[in-house]
Amino acid sequence: MKVEDKVMDLAKRRGFVWGPSPNIYHGGLKGFYDWGPLGKLLKNKVENVLRHGFTSFSFWEVECPTIMPKKVWEASGHLEGFSDPISKCLKCDSYFRVDSVINEKYPDLDVEGLNTEKLREIVDKKKIKCQCGGDLGSIENFDMMMKTKIGMDQEAYLRPETATTTYLLYPEYFRFFRTKLPFGVFQIGKAYRNEISPRQSVFRTREFTQAEAQLFILKDQEKKYEKINDYADEVLPLIKHDSKSIKRVKLKDIVKEKYMKKEAYAYMVYVAYKLYKDMGFDEKKIRIIQHSPDKLAFYADDAWDIEINTDRYGWIELCGVHDRKDYDLKRHAEYSKTKMQVSGETPRILEIAMGVERTTYALLENSLVEDKEREWLDFDKGMAPIDVAIFPLMKKEGMDDLAKEVFIDLDKEFICNYDDSGSIGRRYRRMDEIGTSFCITVDHDSVKNGDVTVREIATMSQVRVKVSELKSVFRELLNGDLKFERIK
Amino acid sequence: MKVEDKVMDLAKRRGFVWGPSPNIYHGGLKGFYDWGPLGKLLKNKVENVLRHGFTSFSFWEVECPTIMPKKVWEASGHLEGFSDPISKCLKCDSYFRVDSVINEKYPDLDVEGLNTEKLREIVDKKKIKCQCGGDLGSIENFDMMMKTKIGMDQEAYLRPETATTTYLLYPEYFRFFRTKLPFGVFQIGKAYRNEISPRQSVFRTREFTQAEAQLFILKDQEKKYEKINDYADEVLPLIKHDSKSIKRVKLKDIVKEKYMKKEAYAYMVYVAYKLYKDMGFDEKKIRIIQHSPDKLAFYADDAWDIEINTDRYGWIELCGVHDRKDYDLKRHAEYSKTKMQVSGETPRILEIAMGVERTTYALLENSLVEDKEREWLDFDKGMAPIDVAIFPLMKKEGMDDLAKEVFIDLDKEFICNYDDSGSIGRRYRRMDEIGTSFCITVDHDSVKNGDVTVREIATMSQVRVKVSELKSVFRELLNGDLKFERIK
Repeated sequence: MKVEDKVMDLAKRRGFVWGPSPNIYHGGLKGFYDWGPLGKLLKNKVENVLRHGFTSFSFWEVECPTIMPKKVWEASGHLEGFSDPISKCLKCDSYFRVDSVINEKYPDLDVEGLNTEKLREIVDKKKIKCQCGGDLGSIENFDMMMKTKIGMDQEAYLRPETATTTYLLYPEYFRFFRTKLPFGVFQIGKAYRNEISPRQSVFRTREFTQAEAQLFILKDQEKKYEKINDYADEVLPLIKHDSKSIKRVKLKDIVKEKYMKKEAYAYMVYVAYKLYKDMGFDEKKIRIIQHSPDKLAFYADDAWDIEINTDRYGWIELCGVHDRKDYDLKRHAEYSKTKMQVSGETPRILEIAMGVERTTYALLENSLVEDKEREWLDFDKGMAPIDVAIFPLMKKEGMDDLAKEVFIDLDKEFICNYDDSGSIGRRYRRMDEIGTSFCITVDHDSVKNGDVTVREIATMSQVRVKVSELKSVFRELLNGDLKFERIK
Repeated sequence: MKVEDKVMDLAKRRGFVWGPSPNIYHGGLKGFYDWGPLGKLLKNKVENVLRHGFTSFSFWEVECPTIMPKKVWEASGHLEGFSDPISKCLKCDSYFRVDSVINEKYPDLDVEGLNTEKLREIVDKKKIKCQCGGDLGSIENFDMMMKTKIGMDQEAYLRPETATTTYLLYPEYFRFFRTKLPFGVFQIGKAYRNEISPRQSVFRTREFTQAEAQLFILKDQEKKYEKINDYADEVLPLIKHDSKSIKRVKLKDIVKEKYMKKEAYAYMVYVAYKLYKDMGFDEKKIRIIQHSPDKLAFYADDAWDIEINTDRYGWIELCGVHDRKDYDLKRHAEYSKTKMQVSGETPRILEIAMGVERTTYALLENSLVEDKEREWLDFDKGMAPIDVAIFPLMKKEGMDDLAKEVFIDLDKEFICNYDDSGSIGRRYRRMDEIGTSFCITVDHDSVKNGDVTVREIATMSQVRVKVSELKSVFRELLNGDLKFERIK
């Protein structure tokens, strides 16, 4: 089994991710997946960290439609520029992304962003053919947005990102934030891209969830940005576009040492980085890497990606932070004939764009541990799909009643599971497999003394805790204020 | 201003709902709305109550794609049966839903579900015309699903409900739940309907969020359902299809007294009702009303709706509970050629379907209070968009530092807002307007004595609370365990 398949296989078996979806119909549509019960719990935890994280940095959440009329995508530039170069095999009639086909044979050849003529040249020169041996037909740009119709005849598209839909509310924000810039908003929601041949399981899908945050800011406010003072000594692992090694740079030094040009932009990179740490990604497995200037979109001033190291796929990109200047609001002001200026200046947008499924899947991958005794999932505390499982040792003599009471009480505050079937050993193994942080066993002594056994997944060590103290103990264990071995 | 407009106007001014969206482009597309910062916080609270509620009744959440291939909708029956009768005015070229046009002139005429011939008869007989005076052209069934294309040429549709996408995972659930029925799942997500002329603001939109839960169950398990014993004495406000008045019936008596046929179905109705109470809807403003048997879909065995009374719109439907028998799995088993039987029997589906935006909007409407002194939003504790606002009396002498400390600490657990601009009176008014449950003021004495003033929105009464006790006090205030007047 390939290493990639191993994680997907585990994800399927344990109810994290199923698909392609709808699986019962001919094995599903490529690029669409279902999140099963445990995967959905984990995805919710990721979204909650992002939601709470952005909010704590003073971003406000909004929710916009996923469908927008054609005009919006003309203004945004997507209708013109958001396409993949595709070609059809003249022998077997399969369609391909030409850049992918080239990179399969020549992984080091840099073909990103090349136009169809340049790609044709390479295909002809390198004699690139279909797997079946057939020649590739003409290369054309294929629109990646999914089209639909609203009402009888209005052309519309499913959004390929949340961002554009967020920008359009600028006039409303301006009033809501009492005409003071900078202000920040974010959106967590679905986006759609009609990838012509999606392959990499949940890393590249046709329907996916984006978490995207924007800071609307004026030119004068970008250079010096006082909010960074609160996090001045935080260290970021940066790789400049012309370097191969990580430099650990303090936030306060990033502009001074010319890694980035604007403090507000450095702040956005820090916010994104902080959220990945909050999700429990190991600092040593995160790097922040700059795009090469010649790869930037014409309107972009700078772009850095957050990448996570995985044992099975290597470094993968989970998030991009983009300095989009005043491109977006200028375009939408022009196309919609709406005034979007403050004292004659169009506000700029600094943006964080995260892939939620990618992030969730990377978290799952990072958590998979195999040792001699067992294969288990080692999530950071508070990030496991299930926080606490409650087991009555037996379904009698008051043990089940007390266990149910404990379950009902804890379930108000934590994600809990009640399991009374099979031996305790088997129940522990089931919880290990899905990464449940703590297990509680209610036994004979519990009924007599009002205490229970709490077991930690990571160490398999156990401790007795009074029922009356469970809530406060788990509160501290799960937010990291208390270490398991310190429980008295 | 019409009463409906009053709530929408308030929703727009205060950043709850904006639209139609995208507003800057010609006033937006009918039937699409943006949820602004406060509306999104409120919608999140609604979703959290539903999520936690379903989970506490042992339903597991899943997330499925919003796009499914044509075949799925053939099997589900949507492709054939999910349409509106429409017609075009021969004079002004506007399109109409014919049943709506008839009901505008004859509100009591029951035209729901009539075929195009019957509607034609009525239009001709009653001489129904367009507002412009023009005649209505031919009446045709217009497909309400939004169509798109996946890959180069695969026909697909945006789902008009979450339900069908949830059913398709039945084989996966069967393994996940270790082959034991009944089991429950739910999904909260977007759905799309191409309404031809949506009018009722956020009550009938083209893109909306559904929260839908299913219990998969066998015939033998439906009639007697032991889980109702835990809630036997809970009382439900029922209106039978042939009655006009509410009867308050205990859950344990519902089947006995022939309101419903199956205990498992009564349990589902109770679950839905309980969640509406959990959101803070007043018991006196909820009723549960049965569909007339001659209006049921041919496969349905029974259907009851949960309705909420609003001052401004009267009774509105927020939720339906449906007994779908074995229709869905039988169809999908047949069309997908997948075995979906347990000992020769196809499992049945009992379903709860809630409209999330409708529910959120009804909550907003229900909360609007005007008295002599002020217009404010009186949400149930824990349901306000913002739980606690923190104000330093002045931005000096340590008051701002302490206020920020308090904010950072409370914000970890509650939805908080920090506001230091304008007079305290003005800050209170701002929070009243958006329904913030509690306000904290940090003053000179706070810095000296370590206590702060806490004010409750509903009563405007105030009390001093130690900073060290704020977290536990708010925890109890917001989950309803503590009344404000009992704080010592």
